Amino acid sequence: MSTISIATAKEVFDLLRDDLAAIEQEFAQQSNSPVDVITEIAQYLMSGGGKRIRPILLLLSAKALGCTSDARIRLGAVVEMLHTATLVHDDIIDEADTRRGRPSSNTTWGNSKCVLAGDWLYMQAFSAALAERNFHVLDLLISLTQQMVEGELLQIQKLGHLINEEEYFDLIYRKTACLFKVSMQLGVAIAPEQSFASPETLDQQLGEYGRNLGLAFQIVDDVLDLTASEEVLGKPAASDLREGKATLAVIHALERGTGADREAIRTVLADRSFERVAHGQILEILQRHGSIDYAMDTACAYAEAARLSIADLPETAAKRALLWVPGYVTTRDR
Amino acid sequence: MSTISIATAKEVFDLLRDDLAAIEQEFAQQSNSPVDVITEIAQYLMSGGGKRIRPILLLLSAKALGCTSDARIRLGAVVEMLHTATLVHDDIIDEADTRRGRPSSNTTWGNSKCVLAGDWLYMQAFSAALAERNFHVLDLLISLTQQMVEGELLQIQKLGHLINEEEYFDLIYRKTACLFKVSMQLGVAIAPEQSFASPETLDQQLGEYGRNLGLAFQIVDDVLDLTASEEVLGKPAASDLREGKATLAVIHALERGTGADREAIRTVLADRSFERVAHGQILEILQRHGSIDYAMDTACAYAEAARLSIADLPETAAKRALLWVPGYVTTRDR
Repeated sequence: MSTISIATAKEVFDLLRDDLAAIEQEFAQQSNSPVDVITEIAQYLMSGGGKRIRPILLLLSAKALGCTSDARIRLGAVVEMLHTATLVHDDIIDEADTRRGRPSSNTTWGNSKCVLAGDWLYMQAFSAALAERNFHVLDLLISLTQQMVEGELLQIQKLGHLINEEEYFDLIYRKTACLFKVSMQLGVAIAPEQSFASPETLDQQLGEYGRNLGLAFQIVDDVLDLTASEEVLGKPAASDLREGKATLAVIHALERGTGADREAIRTVLADRSFERVAHGQILEILQRHGSIDYAMDTACAYAEAARLSIADLPETAAKRALLWVPGYVTTRDR
Repeated sequence: MSTISIATAKEVFDLLRDDLAAIEQEFAQQSNSPVDVITEIAQYLMSGGGKRIRPILLLLSAKALGCTSDARIRLGAVVEMLHTATLVHDDIIDEADTRRGRPSSNTTWGNSKCVLAGDWLYMQAFSAALAERNFHVLDLLISLTQQMVEGELLQIQKLGHLINEEEYFDLIYRKTACLFKVSMQLGVAIAPEQSFASPETLDQQLGEYGRNLGLAFQIVDDVLDLTASEEVLGKPAASDLREGKATLAVIHALERGTGADREAIRTVLADRSFERVAHGQILEILQRHGSIDYAMDTACAYAEAARLSIADLPETAAKRALLWVPGYVTTRDR
């Protein structure tokens, strides 16, 4: 029996340092438009200090299968650009004032320019992907983007309403896990053929890793939104409740709470504010029913499922790094 | 010497009737999303009674080169879907209340849903185009969309300002002529090889037809916006001036007008309203300097250039129809 070997954070960043630097350079190049304001907005957005977790997944997926082609750099930039494009449009929709501790782009440039800057980023991402001359890559990206956009529309329809766990998981799949999955699948799409498994098997296994990890990631994000401070989050605490969004811990409490608990949560979701029911009161309800623990346990179960999805991969530095990521995702505090 | 033979409107519509009906069916199919509100918005938009001039160009271009493949139907739908996607985002930006005599989609569904519905239509168009498995087709479409989005951003930057003819032509190329050009080029891209000319020559000649026709089309559109009534336009008269947009006749009058004329035009553009200077006063200035005639003469010159661009094509029903379109574009009253 082999012992499972997991990388350290330092090993992961040593492994990826050069590639991540190359991806940052690719962003700078891809953010150039003949229209100055686009370049300005694109550079602002791409320098916002995201965690770059989607490019990291793509790089590790490609590396785990021995891919050394430059496509990993270009497509690493593509998945982050697509992610950024969705954020720009989401911030307009949520009327967000801040993002990652800075003014959101719509606050600085106004909605009109940001609708178009988001459009442009989508097109720039597709344009860069198109240069790979790989139809499968384009199929993955276009279908992904459509699912993400549909997810955001589903979310708008559910704002202020009580949703069940099934609806919640569909939303976070579309919002986050789908892009994690595709980032992993793109790594497979650009890797050479493997002797130990078919492309279909690898697409399925690494895709499943991405899906499970993405679900874990978004559940933790939603818990942090409930429990962390504005300082740590870089945006107002409990933004989701303020926007009428019920997330996993809240859904759990709704299903187990007393009539008064349910009423308190309903009030916040309908009001989209803590004017009648305090943030602290909601946290007390969640604690009393063990709802935060429930959500974190669920996230950890998905993180473990992610690790198991890649059990069949040969032992490489990239696999060890992929085994490290789920623990990072579930223990982060921002 | 051959006499130039031009089709009649009836001949053109007889020639295209079945294909246009098939394209309408394709729209209905392509407007289906698992998310109901997307289907609803998409169907509303696609049934808005546009002139379908972009699909018509694509069909005629393909037919002129003997293309009988189903790709012409799918790509005909694609160019109209892309056009519609830009309209949705433009209406949000312009805060338009009406479009083609009906409430604009943002008025009915709100900006948030329409940002996403526009995104979805872009993706659906690319997804349909991707099914053709033709990289050249995708290159044309992605680069086109980026140029259109950049054009809209350039326009926002110039709102309320005086622009010169060069800036005007760059804007209307991006806004309209670029998609007309690509519609023609897509016809070439899906046609079989021709004995009388290389694909490059045809791409150039038919693309040039589309560019010239698109410029003529937009100049006429801009003149109608100045001179036609709200009833005829299906939106408020002189919307462009109300939005701070200077178009060709206005630019002409600005360059030739008296100090008082210039001041009157400047005032309307800066105010974005006719509160201090009446619409009739602007029309009087334009008439006095022959600016409307100048714009229409320019449109007719581009229409003629369009006809000349396809002089080398063999005589077919489709070529005769292509020779008819420029006259239709410059003599329409809405």
